[in-house]
Amino acid sequence: MNFSFIFYILGWVITLEGAFLMLPCVTSLIYQERQGIWFLVVAVIEAAIGALLIRRKPKNPQFFTKEGFAVVGLSWIIMSLIGALPFTLAGEIPNYVDAVFETVSGFTTTGASILTDIEALSHTALIWRSFTHWIGGMGVFIFLLAVLPMVGGYNMNLMRAESPGPSVGKLVPKVKESAKILYLIYFAMTITEMIILVITKMPVFDAICISFGTAGTGGFGIRGDSCASYSAASQWVITVFMALFGINFNFYYFILKKKFKAAFSIEEVRWYIALILLSTVFIGYNILKFHDSIGETFRTAAFQVSSIITTTGFATVDFNLWPTFSKTILIVLMLTGACAGSTGGGLKISRFVIWWKSIKNELEGFIHPRSVKSFEMDGKTIDKEMVRSVSVYMVVFMLVYAISVFLLSLDKFDMETNFTAVLATINNIGPGLGEVGPCGGFANFSWFSKIVIIFDMLAGRLELYPILLLLAPGLWKKH
Amino acid sequence: MNFSFIFYILGWVITLEGAFLMLPCVTSLIYQERQGIWFLVVAVIEAAIGALLIRRKPKNPQFFTKEGFAVVGLSWIIMSLIGALPFTLAGEIPNYVDAVFETVSGFTTTGASILTDIEALSHTALIWRSFTHWIGGMGVFIFLLAVLPMVGGYNMNLMRAESPGPSVGKLVPKVKESAKILYLIYFAMTITEMIILVITKMPVFDAICISFGTAGTGGFGIRGDSCASYSAASQWVITVFMALFGINFNFYYFILKKKFKAAFSIEEVRWYIALILLSTVFIGYNILKFHDSIGETFRTAAFQVSSIITTTGFATVDFNLWPTFSKTILIVLMLTGACAGSTGGGLKISRFVIWWKSIKNELEGFIHPRSVKSFEMDGKTIDKEMVRSVSVYMVVFMLVYAISVFLLSLDKFDMETNFTAVLATINNIGPGLGEVGPCGGFANFSWFSKIVIIFDMLAGRLELYPILLLLAPGLWKKH
Repeated sequence: MNFSFIFYILGWVITLEGAFLMLPCVTSLIYQERQGIWFLVVAVIEAAIGALLIRRKPKNPQFFTKEGFAVVGLSWIIMSLIGALPFTLAGEIPNYVDAVFETVSGFTTTGASILTDIEALSHTALIWRSFTHWIGGMGVFIFLLAVLPMVGGYNMNLMRAESPGPSVGKLVPKVKESAKILYLIYFAMTITEMIILVITKMPVFDAICISFGTAGTGGFGIRGDSCASYSAASQWVITVFMALFGINFNFYYFILKKKFKAAFSIEEVRWYIALILLSTVFIGYNILKFHDSIGETFRTAAFQVSSIITTTGFATVDFNLWPTFSKTILIVLMLTGACAGSTGGGLKISRFVIWWKSIKNELEGFIHPRSVKSFEMDGKTIDKEMVRSVSVYMVVFMLVYAISVFLLSLDKFDMETNFTAVLATINNIGPGLGEVGPCGGFANFSWFSKIVIIFDMLAGRLELYPILLLLAPGLWKKH
Repeated sequence: MNFSFIFYILGWVITLEGAFLMLPCVTSLIYQERQGIWFLVVAVIEAAIGALLIRRKPKNPQFFTKEGFAVVGLSWIIMSLIGALPFTLAGEIPNYVDAVFETVSGFTTTGASILTDIEALSHTALIWRSFTHWIGGMGVFIFLLAVLPMVGGYNMNLMRAESPGPSVGKLVPKVKESAKILYLIYFAMTITEMIILVITKMPVFDAICISFGTAGTGGFGIRGDSCASYSAASQWVITVFMALFGINFNFYYFILKKKFKAAFSIEEVRWYIALILLSTVFIGYNILKFHDSIGETFRTAAFQVSSIITTTGFATVDFNLWPTFSKTILIVLMLTGACAGSTGGGLKISRFVIWWKSIKNELEGFIHPRSVKSFEMDGKTIDKEMVRSVSVYMVVFMLVYAISVFLLSLDKFDMETNFTAVLATINNIGPGLGEVGPCGGFANFSWFSKIVIIFDMLAGRLELYPILLLLAPGLWKKH
């Protein structure tokens, strides 16, 4: 284990978070809120610690998968622990475990909240809460890779640990350039959404926060009813942008390069669009009787479908009250999640495409035992090793899921609540069903359950291994 | 596809079922019930059809995995369709879909029932219903292999398709001898249970039926309250025998050969025993307040644990009323199931052992990328190919599970009911939670939902592939 390298990278991450804290500081100046002082204090401390750690350059710039995974896992934990401090210091979330829960929920773009009265928070706290979504959505390492002259030539190991999906696609041969392009697309789309939301007459502060939440597919709202009180036009804008941020960013790169055919031939994207349309139609038909007009029905259906499949978690209705059929569709969408290489969470549709093809391949193998066991996706061969690793991923996922549900069952809630609370947090969605439905929340869980859920949110966002690896004793040996 | 071979084997299966029908016929003579005539009619028809099919010996005795899977899948379907006829002809289950449901539930050792008043059935129908558990528990092909001079030397392909678990262990080099030993152990243990139950003062008819249900890990009771009204002693006997039938039969073979060390070093068996003990203690502690004495508490806990982990499905209490913690443990046990190579269903503990080791191996691979990726279980190397195939199995399982829950959501029940109804039937357990809990049943599902569940029971018993393969168009080509 290359510890000097790990401390060096941690230094950069902490400094960066200090810089990001400037946004709530500025906000507090605009709204004349004295809570801002605590955000500034934490930012200054971070700058100091960061500077100290960065000063000592690593002796050996070489690092491998394990260092990549470890530093990413540790960074996310430390970022959350420090990022939660201002909430508690400013007295807005007095309980520190709650503050960490809220911050982890923010960075991991989950959007699950322990707050019972969101509107009581200051603008300073609200914007930091939403900004964590934006930071966590694309990932802090992609940002570092884009702006810093990184040591060594092993940066793919960092990108791999933080990027969602079964395989990491570099857009261009150089990692630094890929990271820059990703962040530029991300930035441009976020600004576009803000502007359009303001045009639909949403207040500017709301537009900024909601856009952060959409872009990171996070889901923290700033009103008690999430997005229910925004105009129909605003809701449609949010629906479309949620869906857009769930698409593999390779798609946008192809579009920018005018390779339209290549863009629309990405298998995952086609499945994703089909899933959204089909689910909207099915649910719309199923909930017709709850609404006055067909327009309202399908706006509601499209909004929740887009929100759940992208794992954003905004809501305009209490879908916990929907019929079983619609709720079952939502649970399926909670599982699939969005596209790999997007800011969305979940298991990712590309994994399902690979799983589906492996099943067909497995059956084929019984009929023709001597046939070669491999198949293609997007023109690339998926070999046995890939099938093995993607399938083992489901096994790991199910195990973490089962253990978490088991630990939550020690708490006082019913099965539906526990099963969907874990599903909604490990997949970084936010609201589940039952007590944790869109009108409920995570406030009443015990501190133990909250820590389990914090673990799940982190594990889910980083695709399990970087967090699980931190628990492996073998990782901490010198060699 | 070797069709002539498939028809020949089907002939034997049908004949054999006709022979098995003699048991209800004899029962009807003893109890003077006229329903017996219909069982005789079906038996005679089966003998005729069977004789016709057997007469034409297959031209080519060679067969491969696909023929093995196809003939096993088809046989179970046909056995169920014919085995359901006497129920409907005798008017005991007037609706044929219900009768097929009940028969499939019997053969697959699920024990889920559409009956609302079990005690209204004749002794003739009751004993056939319980006997299907015994037949399906060990499997009809193991029986055929044991008693028939089979054509060709490819009998392993039949045994593989019907035996539970990730790998087929032949006890002795010759398949025929292995099958004989398995059936002898099965037979001896069943008779032993009957005798001990009669000693604990259970009526003989009850003892026979309950022993069939225990041996096959089926779970059809013959009283409205399942096993609640039997004496404490009888309940303990059933508890122990349920647990015994969930153990890998290799264990008993080692015991018979006096290889005690080998018997107790089977990893799966150790996990199985540990799981039963731990779950009983946890649940017992959790439900203490529901019972008068500690003895009664742990008898109740041990009975349901043993019943659920072995996927039997007998009950002495309505565990649907238990606290969430205990219900969650039961759901975990529903998933794990019993040992491979036993009569129990579920995913099998050996698969979980392999999954658990693959996860450790996968994490190890990140830390030491150049280490060899393989590990051992019971002294045998589990290579990448085995990990791939066992992991793909979970993927297939989850997919069938998800599609089934989705289809059931079209019906009128809540989520807990639907999720556990599929879990309890695909794992061949019987009762689930909610509406399908131990005091509920499957009577109120629509015919469409019943067909979905019938499919799940068959797919679950035959470990998915033989049934799924029947749906693959490629299977039915001449070559």
